[in-house]
Amino acid sequence: MMVIMKKGHSEEELTAILKRLEETGLSGHTIKGVERTVVGVVGQVYPELADELETMPGVDDIVPISKPYKLASREFKPDDTTIKVGNVTVGGGSTVVMAGPCAVESEEQLMTTARAVRAAGGHILRGGAFKPRTSPYSFRGLEEKGLQILAAARQETGLPIITEVMTVRDIDLVARYADILQIGARNAQNFVLLEEVGRTGKPVLLKRGFASTVQDWLLSAEYVISQGNRQVMLCERGIRTFETATRNTMDLSAIALAKRLSHLPVISDPSHGTGKWYLVEPMAMASIAAGADGLILEVHPNPDRALSDGSQSLTFENFRLLMERAQAVTQALGRPLVVPSASAAGV
Amino acid sequence: MMVIMKKGHSEEELTAILKRLEETGLSGHTIKGVERTVVGVVGQVYPELADELETMPGVDDIVPISKPYKLASREFKPDDTTIKVGNVTVGGGSTVVMAGPCAVESEEQLMTTARAVRAAGGHILRGGAFKPRTSPYSFRGLEEKGLQILAAARQETGLPIITEVMTVRDIDLVARYADILQIGARNAQNFVLLEEVGRTGKPVLLKRGFASTVQDWLLSAEYVISQGNRQVMLCERGIRTFETATRNTMDLSAIALAKRLSHLPVISDPSHGTGKWYLVEPMAMASIAAGADGLILEVHPNPDRALSDGSQSLTFENFRLLMERAQAVTQALGRPLVVPSASAAGV
Amino acid sequence: MMVIMKKGHSEEELTAILKRLEETGLSGHTIKGVERTVVGVVGQVYPELADELETMPGVDDIVPISKPYKLASREFKPDDTTIKVGNVTVGGGSTVVMAGPCAVESEEQLMTTARAVRAAGGHILRGGAFKPRTSPYSFRGLEEKGLQILAAARQETGLPIITEVMTVRDIDLVARYADILQIGARNAQNFVLLEEVGRTGKPVLLKRGFASTVQDWLLSAEYVISQGNRQVMLCERGIRTFETATRNTMDLSAIALAKRLSHLPVISDPSHGTGKWYLVEPMAMASIAAGADGLILEVHPNPDRALSDGSQSLTFENFRLLMERAQAVTQALGRPLVVPSASAAGV
Amino acid sequence: MMVIMKKGHSEEELTAILKRLEETGLSGHTIKGVERTVVGVVGQVYPELADELETMPGVDDIVPISKPYKLASREFKPDDTTIKVGNVTVGGGSTVVMAGPCAVESEEQLMTTARAVRAAGGHILRGGAFKPRTSPYSFRGLEEKGLQILAAARQETGLPIITEVMTVRDIDLVARYADILQIGARNAQNFVLLEEVGRTGKPVLLKRGFASTVQDWLLSAEYVISQGNRQVMLCERGIRTFETATRNTMDLSAIALAKRLSHLPVISDPSHGTGKWYLVEPMAMASIAAGADGLILEVHPNPDRALSDGSQSLTFENFRLLMERAQAVTQALGRPLVVPSASAAGV
Repeated sequence: MMVIMKKGHSEEELTAILKRLEETGLSGHTIKGVERTVVGVVGQVYPELADELETMPGVDDIVPISKPYKLASREFKPDDTTIKVGNVTVGGGSTVVMAGPCAVESEEQLMTTARAVRAAGGHILRGGAFKPRTSPYSFRGLEEKGLQILAAARQETGLPIITEVMTVRDIDLVARYADILQIGARNAQNFVLLEEVGRTGKPVLLKRGFASTVQDWLLSAEYVISQGNRQVMLCERGIRTFETATRNTMDLSAIALAKRLSHLPVISDPSHGTGKWYLVEPMAMASIAAGADGLILEVHPNPDRALSDGSQSLTFENFRLLMERAQAVTQALGRPLVVPSASAAGV
Repeated sequence: MMVIMKKGHSEEELTAILKRLEETGLSGHTIKGVERTVVGVVGQVYPELADELETMPGVDDIVPISKPYKLASREFKPDDTTIKVGNVTVGGGSTVVMAGPCAVESEEQLMTTARAVRAAGGHILRGGAFKPRTSPYSFRGLEEKGLQILAAARQETGLPIITEVMTVRDIDLVARYADILQIGARNAQNFVLLEEVGRTGKPVLLKRGFASTVQDWLLSAEYVISQGNRQVMLCERGIRTFETATRNTMDLSAIALAKRLSHLPVISDPSHGTGKWYLVEPMAMASIAAGADGLILEVHPNPDRALSDGSQSLTFENFRLLMERAQAVTQALGRPLVVPSASAAGV
Repeated sequence: MMVIMKKGHSEEELTAILKRLEETGLSGHTIKGVERTVVGVVGQVYPELADELETMPGVDDIVPISKPYKLASREFKPDDTTIKVGNVTVGGGSTVVMAGPCAVESEEQLMTTARAVRAAGGHILRGGAFKPRTSPYSFRGLEEKGLQILAAARQETGLPIITEVMTVRDIDLVARYADILQIGARNAQNFVLLEEVGRTGKPVLLKRGFASTVQDWLLSAEYVISQGNRQVMLCERGIRTFETATRNTMDLSAIALAKRLSHLPVISDPSHGTGKWYLVEPMAMASIAAGADGLILEVHPNPDRALSDGSQSLTFENFRLLMERAQAVTQALGRPLVVPSASAAGV
Repeated sequence: MMVIMKKGHSEEELTAILKRLEETGLSGHTIKGVERTVVGVVGQVYPELADELETMPGVDDIVPISKPYKLASREFKPDDTTIKVGNVTVGGGSTVVMAGPCAVESEEQLMTTARAVRAAGGHILRGGAFKPRTSPYSFRGLEEKGLQILAAARQETGLPIITEVMTVRDIDLVARYADILQIGARNAQNFVLLEEVGRTGKPVLLKRGFASTVQDWLLSAEYVISQGNRQVMLCERGIRTFETATRNTMDLSAIALAKRLSHLPVISDPSHGTGKWYLVEPMAMASIAAGADGLILEVHPNPDRALSDGSQSLTFENFRLLMERAQAVTQALGRPLVVPSASAAGV
């Protein structure tokens, strides 16, 4: 941490800073520049220190140096983390595709979709049983009935399932059914929920918040990992910007950057990221090219009858075409689609 | 809702739209303009309809007309909502001041602060016992011990207390102590939490999310009110923008706008909104001038020793000066500081 | 400037940095922390240095320390700059009001408005003769004819005039008529234009760009001042954020902050800032409370017949009411409305 | 255009709207819904109408239907526009690469770079002679000397050249040397400049503004095209958001969307878009996958000695590797790198 002193600070003010650092077991190295005096803080800094120092007389600004996340960083663990989900390995150089409807609406809807996902080469089945909705008057999911339908689809198709958990109250229930626990964008900084899913030991897919910086996102992952669970997949799903032509603004450079700063796999969600089915395919390809380890996509038998997010869902045929194109692009990039391991259970 | 057809759509596509509307008990009125055909949808629209129609062939865009919130709107309830908290009334033409430390750190810290708040004319005591922190390594509050200290301070000073609840798991505990339940910005779209605090029947202060539009914010209030609890105060605390010179960007026009769109009282939090103690006073005055019904402020005996958010906390002296200035400004605006009612309990 | 080294950098990499600094006449002070090595750069840093160092092997990040603007800073000139415009002084503790139509549409429209502005106590007359419009198909102003009408209005009412100059080509023409040259938000980083208006020696009102940080804004002012012209008024007019309920998001904390960082007067434009006439009055009062030295407002005889920005224009009656309220609020804040000096010319 | 009436509007208010529309040669079709009355406006709407109607009594909101740009839209011209620049065709199914230093610094620097660009298979040479810089104290280019060096490099290598023009004053000068006139992000809404480059009849590369929506960007293109010049390339170079880990946030969905809404070619600038050389390659590949017709890249012989934007420049070796990868990815996508035509002049 660097303490930037105001121009014209007094010697007493500088001495007070140095004394305060000493009291807390740190040391300060003073550099007197042409315009500014800067104090470099050496030692194990604690999170509140910046706020404390910033209010001291003579201080102009505080500049952090160390990154606040540790366990999620590539500096801490240089090699890629891979996560085993059923017979599929996420991360480590190949590309995984998770697909399914936004919400589980009925057994027929999900089963038909699951078969289409499998037939087209998808690896993991997605589907929401608990849906966070901006309006209290929207459809909010079939809850446990939805989880049971997902489990039946896994039983038939062998596809592992990913589904969202919205509150600590439901973790046990959801964890009984799901192979991957999904944390939604609106809960990206629901810290109690993050710790509790960390304690389950299950793989977690952590969506980036609408307004989370890459650093915030990695700190949210840190909350999960700090409970002993390193099976975290980061998921870019668009941030909120001034642009309204798309539902959100996908930040693909965050995918490339997260791969550099962290060892965790990164998944891209172009369905929520764009909100327009016709942008899903180009942004899916672009995400892979940017370095994503996989995709999570919305597929629905009848997007125009979907109870949630129809406008961003692919038809089965469009999903099939996307998978064909993904095959070509992932090969050109040297990160081919995952081949599930032989020990596939449940098929 | 208006359905905007693509240029060059076919008659069959238009007919399909009209048929679909009929099926769902709605009717469509077609307007053929110079460039576009538009279908006006008449009837009680359900939330998923927009997504469904947007995916139908020939449709270019969907434009919602009705506002998605009802109970929170001024159209639904034209007169200002007032909320009684202990001997203080929030809303209805006067200005209320809530103040105290970001986090409860010790009995001494809180008691000293509570006395200073009361002496300077503050109305309600704030203090966090459960703290949401971006980093898992930061101080996260004294939990129940903090609540007990708050209750003791209320006992001595007569000031009602407001404190944050972060998770459904803690609602019962926090509600036993608090006069107002605070929902933080990171939980602004934690819909399960919103509904559950709605069920307590206690006054709720609902912070706007970092990336919540005014409409999102009112929909979050709708979640609380839809459980039968109309005692909701909206709280503007800054949104996330490209500007980094301040911690957040306070959106004071949202205060004026929320007062127009909704009957709920609006409180302003310039401490979190700016993150800089020296901006708190001007932005507090500006918030009142923009129409806020009150302020929530961070005050600390030693901001440079605070365990949380020291850089944005006022000293006792600065708080006293702010209250003097608030006195003058609220009088000039015709919305004077609240006078607590005589039936004050607990003093 | 601080150079943050990567974890695990080599000694050679560090030595290369220090050598490079020496070559350019600077010196580097190395601080080896627990996690990171940091090099503090001492000497007169040039703007390109950060980019150069950032690409050198072993470097993780560069952190600037000095502020890049000089002449615009309060550190350079601690006392408030005041600017004399006709018989009115902008800055220095009182509040100035500039008002008039968005665009000059006709002699009658402007004369009527000028009289209403004067009658209600406004100080300076605004009106656009050259209008920047997002669409090439919108009304773009009466050009020189508009300037002549403005001059006639000044002649009759004695009000100095402010009008926009959009391109270097028109500077001479506009400067012949205007008392203040306005630089619009879309030209906030049109650096050639900034320098050229700097050379005229006329007072300049510099609007903040949609996407300009406070630092960018002060650097734009620096361009004008660096040509020897210190008569610069900063103007906050809203930034672009995700919020669409208002035309822009007014950043009133930027007003308070600019007053702290710079000696220049700051004017607020709640008409463009909000885009809604019913938000103009509360945001005008809030701007003054946040520390603005003045307001610039859109007033029109028939807002519903305006050729530009009707939806954000005040009627004469609403302007009169706003001025009454401004009287009360500015007095309460100790920064009363300007009293024009006796030596008023042209009346 | 749709006029949304307030709840509880009077019949007189509605009649006044209809009468006003009639006066201006339009007609209004009233739809009375369950909650709202809406008036659909039929006829050739003019840009100011929305503002006018919004201020009339009883009106709640105005919703535009038609897109404000015409000539730039794919509805107006369904097939892709292709632009011939020297022996290279931009647009129409293949991928073009423009590369070179941010700023021309010396003959040696540019010549070396031009040869490296050509050797690696680049098609067009970029280099700034006039540089817009945030700070007035930064290097601003060699001006005409820089243009002469660019022309000499074209002479030797046969590569057409693209360079920025910052002000109307310099258009004639720059147009004498350049094959493509570049309009920078800060001038994206400098409407006078847009029209004047439109009048030159030269190909124009139009960067998206920091805060321009896709609609704004297309309207800026409309300014150029409305002067009779359809040779416009759109260029995505990142927008300003809350994320600070990258210089800007690249909005690749805007590339896919612009290709759908417009017939113009779209170029991507991952150097400015990310500001980090190590993100350029992944974002270049991602841009192509998102549908870009080409790339514009910063390449420098010694990025650590560059006078501008060194941190985002590629070395020759990194550029060569990028071109190899681009070869594979463009082939997989069916949009291979452009093959210059045989009639190459100047080689």
